Amino acid sequence: MIRVAVLGCGRIGRMHAANIAAHPRAALSMVHDVHAPAADAVAAEHGVPTGSADDAFGPGIDAVLVATATETHADFIERAVAAGTPILCEKPIDLDPARVARCAEAIAGASVPVQIGFNRRFDPGHRAARDALRAGEIGDLQQVVITSRDPAMPPRVYYAAAGGLMRDMTIHDFDLARFMLGAEPVEIFAVAGRRTDPALMAELNDHDSAMVVMRTADGVQCHINNARCAVYGYDQRVELLGDAGMLVSGNRKPHEMRRYTAAQSEAAAPYEFFFVERYAEAFRAQLDAFFDSIETGAAVQAGFEDGHCALLLAEAAYRSLREGRMVRVEEVTQ
Amino acid sequence: MIRVAVLGCGRIGRMHAANIAAHPRAALSMVHDVHAPAADAVAAEHGVPTGSADDAFGPGIDAVLVATATETHADFIERAVAAGTPILCEKPIDLDPARVARCAEAIAGASVPVQIGFNRRFDPGHRAARDALRAGEIGDLQQVVITSRDPAMPPRVYYAAAGGLMRDMTIHDFDLARFMLGAEPVEIFAVAGRRTDPALMAELNDHDSAMVVMRTADGVQCHINNARCAVYGYDQRVELLGDAGMLVSGNRKPHEMRRYTAAQSEAAAPYEFFFVERYAEAFRAQLDAFFDSIETGAAVQAGFEDGHCALLLAEAAYRSLREGRMVRVEEVTQ
Amino acid sequence: MIRVAVLGCGRIGRMHAANIAAHPRAALSMVHDVHAPAADAVAAEHGVPTGSADDAFGPGIDAVLVATATETHADFIERAVAAGTPILCEKPIDLDPARVARCAEAIAGASVPVQIGFNRRFDPGHRAARDALRAGEIGDLQQVVITSRDPAMPPRVYYAAAGGLMRDMTIHDFDLARFMLGAEPVEIFAVAGRRTDPALMAELNDHDSAMVVMRTADGVQCHINNARCAVYGYDQRVELLGDAGMLVSGNRKPHEMRRYTAAQSEAAAPYEFFFVERYAEAFRAQLDAFFDSIETGAAVQAGFEDGHCALLLAEAAYRSLREGRMVRVEEVTQ
Amino acid sequence: MIRVAVLGCGRIGRMHAANIAAHPRAALSMVHDVHAPAADAVAAEHGVPTGSADDAFGPGIDAVLVATATETHADFIERAVAAGTPILCEKPIDLDPARVARCAEAIAGASVPVQIGFNRRFDPGHRAARDALRAGEIGDLQQVVITSRDPAMPPRVYYAAAGGLMRDMTIHDFDLARFMLGAEPVEIFAVAGRRTDPALMAELNDHDSAMVVMRTADGVQCHINNARCAVYGYDQRVELLGDAGMLVSGNRKPHEMRRYTAAQSEAAAPYEFFFVERYAEAFRAQLDAFFDSIETGAAVQAGFEDGHCALLLAEAAYRSLREGRMVRVEEVTQ
Repeated sequence: MIRVAVLGCGRIGRMHAANIAAHPRAALSMVHDVHAPAADAVAAEHGVPTGSADDAFGPGIDAVLVATATETHADFIERAVAAGTPILCEKPIDLDPARVARCAEAIAGASVPVQIGFNRRFDPGHRAARDALRAGEIGDLQQVVITSRDPAMPPRVYYAAAGGLMRDMTIHDFDLARFMLGAEPVEIFAVAGRRTDPALMAELNDHDSAMVVMRTADGVQCHINNARCAVYGYDQRVELLGDAGMLVSGNRKPHEMRRYTAAQSEAAAPYEFFFVERYAEAFRAQLDAFFDSIETGAAVQAGFEDGHCALLLAEAAYRSLREGRMVRVEEVTQ
Repeated sequence: MIRVAVLGCGRIGRMHAANIAAHPRAALSMVHDVHAPAADAVAAEHGVPTGSADDAFGPGIDAVLVATATETHADFIERAVAAGTPILCEKPIDLDPARVARCAEAIAGASVPVQIGFNRRFDPGHRAARDALRAGEIGDLQQVVITSRDPAMPPRVYYAAAGGLMRDMTIHDFDLARFMLGAEPVEIFAVAGRRTDPALMAELNDHDSAMVVMRTADGVQCHINNARCAVYGYDQRVELLGDAGMLVSGNRKPHEMRRYTAAQSEAAAPYEFFFVERYAEAFRAQLDAFFDSIETGAAVQAGFEDGHCALLLAEAAYRSLREGRMVRVEEVTQ
Repeated sequence: MIRVAVLGCGRIGRMHAANIAAHPRAALSMVHDVHAPAADAVAAEHGVPTGSADDAFGPGIDAVLVATATETHADFIERAVAAGTPILCEKPIDLDPARVARCAEAIAGASVPVQIGFNRRFDPGHRAARDALRAGEIGDLQQVVITSRDPAMPPRVYYAAAGGLMRDMTIHDFDLARFMLGAEPVEIFAVAGRRTDPALMAELNDHDSAMVVMRTADGVQCHINNARCAVYGYDQRVELLGDAGMLVSGNRKPHEMRRYTAAQSEAAAPYEFFFVERYAEAFRAQLDAFFDSIETGAAVQAGFEDGHCALLLAEAAYRSLREGRMVRVEEVTQ
Repeated sequence: MIRVAVLGCGRIGRMHAANIAAHPRAALSMVHDVHAPAADAVAAEHGVPTGSADDAFGPGIDAVLVATATETHADFIERAVAAGTPILCEKPIDLDPARVARCAEAIAGASVPVQIGFNRRFDPGHRAARDALRAGEIGDLQQVVITSRDPAMPPRVYYAAAGGLMRDMTIHDFDLARFMLGAEPVEIFAVAGRRTDPALMAELNDHDSAMVVMRTADGVQCHINNARCAVYGYDQRVELLGDAGMLVSGNRKPHEMRRYTAAQSEAAAPYEFFFVERYAEAFRAQLDAFFDSIETGAAVQAGFEDGHCALLLAEAAYRSLREGRMVRVEEVTQ
């Protein structure tokens, strides 16, 4: 059994703790949160002790899952690598590319598994699409279209720490695009808007919707569209066009019941509300893959470099927003 | 150009007249109805003359389409065969099996095309299912399930001439079952109910819903369910289970627009309202096939014998209703 | 925490054990199987002790889950009731209605929760359909259509203990029909066939496909179709027709990825392979409901009487098979 | 009856001729093509005379449908307006914005109906989406996503006259975007690629795929993606995101038959092959609307100005391609 410490007992930390507790190859061994009552609640639910962050890198712990505030991520990654403790860390690594670059230097050459929480790579539908693409089912890839919309605006308090729409939300899509493309986007163009709550977004200098176009060196095109508030539910779709066909990974409904009335036919329930429900299987598969890497030494499937690249795409997107032009990604990496 | 006379200018006659007028290989040459204003209206719409029923079997007419009252069908069929005029006649041939049997004798051996209006055989979806079945795509057939529901109760005046649910509505499904099975049902069981308008149905000794089970000599099972009042629209489905797969011919929606709101996802418009809309392509393909038979001498794809067999299944179903048991079809043919 | 003993460590017992182990309100406390290695494997997987069947009704156990051979079910139910131990017992209660009737007498009046493993009642889609029906969304119920097909023929050894298609497979659909109808079927008609493996089925006097029609006192019609071998996957659908609409609970796919090629569009993965996958959520919700009944004293949602009624419908169906007629259910209850 | 002359008897002209011949309110009165055999064939099929282009603006003709080569469109529009003959002219008006501007001046102030062949506005699904949007069903519009892919590369000879991907193919989507947005795009960004036939596209300085992002003054975002070669069929989708929901107009399949096998479930036929099939209803509704405008004086639903605006968007898109930046549409209008 892999003994895992969970750092951070907010919404996503609680979910990870429950998944670890129920996992046949792992044991939830310790939880921690800077807000003690949050840790206490999760500890009580699973009958495990709370501990300090230091404890997570001490004896009796084989791996650490980090779901703390973003500004602590890079520190924990460096600490885990130094301690030789495999780490699964929520995204983003940091909002500041310079800090991420320093972290990259600090951990360079280490062989301890460092996995970043890009859960969408592990979604069964997205994964099946990518596998079919790689297997040649649709020939050469030509276009990728990612639709990614949250079901509701986050509360006001959320935005400051989030770092802006591109670093908080689109970053998942940047990673998913890279996962599908199998190649680096070299150019990016972005627009972003304030349609759902223009006053709040203007005040915070943030955005609630965006459209992005990227291109690889080989000319494959990729579009991402984002919105903070899709009232019909968490909308997560990926479409891959190749010269021999198309693959589409669509939304999961909570069940397959459909209504037929005089007003409509085939009406389904709204989509799964948000990421905990929609990506429940993905979060479990993400853990599985992490444990596989620990046990077999296989490379992690979403690593530090992936987190770094996604953040650079966000940086380039912001430059495109400011300058109204296609930006080469290398402009922000130099 | 095949010059066609249309006898009967009610709802379905008007539709046939318009389809003939628009057909590249045919000309609408004459229309007739015992109710003169009905004929006049259709004649005016297409700029063609009205005429008597006699005129339809005289010079200048190459084929006749009969959409008159049911009790006239057998006479017109006999007359058409005697005159050597190809005939496409609406179902049923007659409500009385004895009259149909006499008609069969009267036209025995004649080579003039006699096609019965079993339009569903020509629906692109149903036809594709049958073709795939015959092509071996699902291996040996095991079960057929036909769902056939009208969108609303007909007006009171309709029922008397219709001859009861089984002869009026289920008869289409009996024919479709035979078309799919590629073999004769030898046994039939039926229940029928009065749920939508119990008082009216009891008064008229008719039914507004039914469930049927049939079996071929080879043991293939077939279920039909009927309802007069499916408020979500005309529901017409066929499902074929084979030992290597399943084929399902589903409903056609008026368009492919879907709605997504906080209350639901993927809601489509209700199904096409009724047969004129749902089977528009089938009615045109039915004409095509009739004209093909006229021009090439090919056997009609839904002939007199098909009309006869479907009616016998209705007879056997009524006996099953009365006796609460599985009835062998040969019991009503002797 | 509710301490649960699992009796029977075959395929379904192992699944239950894993669900109990992962359940936040329960603890897997002991496992047992007459075949010791099966119990040892499950015990090792979850780090729990094995024990005898006697131990399950002794101290330290709050509830028992029975997934043993059918012929032991009634004994375990009587023993659990005598011991005051809540029991969740797999279906069927027994293959012999007389034994079930004696068991009913033996436990009459007891208040200890006795739940029968009709997992389909807890499927989110089926449940949503029933809830919408009860909430009046489709008005008065008119017809129920249940499609229930297994993905492959069981091995030869399976059939003898299973008790025949109607008692083994259709029994789930009988229960689901009762759950949806909200009323007792009073009449039943059935046909059954041997299409997939005629030689084996004839030798065993069993069937591999069936069609059933039932009717409630109020005239609501219900059709069930069964097949042992639907190669496209475990096919589990329920359709409810009311005078104000229709509700359909359809199949769950393993994910929502669809393929589009020159040969086809919208092709999805085959359906979930079998009950463990298809009804994974239902099996967990079934446990939840059982624990609720234990904790709150609420009536179980699928009780002994439900198991009894479903078996009587199977009895009546067999009589209908033999006699080729509609059988009143009361004929087999007297 | 409205007597219509058809100029141009290529593929689309033939289709229009057949639709006019079958239309209850119109008569096909004359056809013309510079290639006489093409006109003769259509004339023979419908039993109508051929004539010169001059004849189309003489006595006995009430309206003209122009499906000739693009470079003749503006002349025919000017001539029709001068003659007071209502005209339905295929898109584009001309490949040269200066020519279109002169044409606009020449016909300024005239009241004769001039309709441009933007058939997609009349598609039942697209129209239903727009109507629901205008009716407020999804609240304020936030994003529009248009997917528009042809099923196969056109032959080499096609490209020169077509004027490039944006003027030939995307122009339909520019018009559809304006139809949906209900407001003018003021900014546009485009990328285009050569993935399907890089050698040919480079030689012709053309593209076989593209992605576009536009924005209205009000901040509504619109994405278009195009590909010349979607082997799974003509892919035509529109998605409208509003703050109260989403509307999606999807693809039409040739029928609703689905296949289920051990390898897949729910596989449908490929989408309708191309525009004649996919937009069959739209082309008929387009004619209806044109005849309505003639009979009632109602404004045409896709007019000269719409043709002009779509062409300017194509111009702006090409400037964006060259300069790698967001282009304001007013830059190309001054």
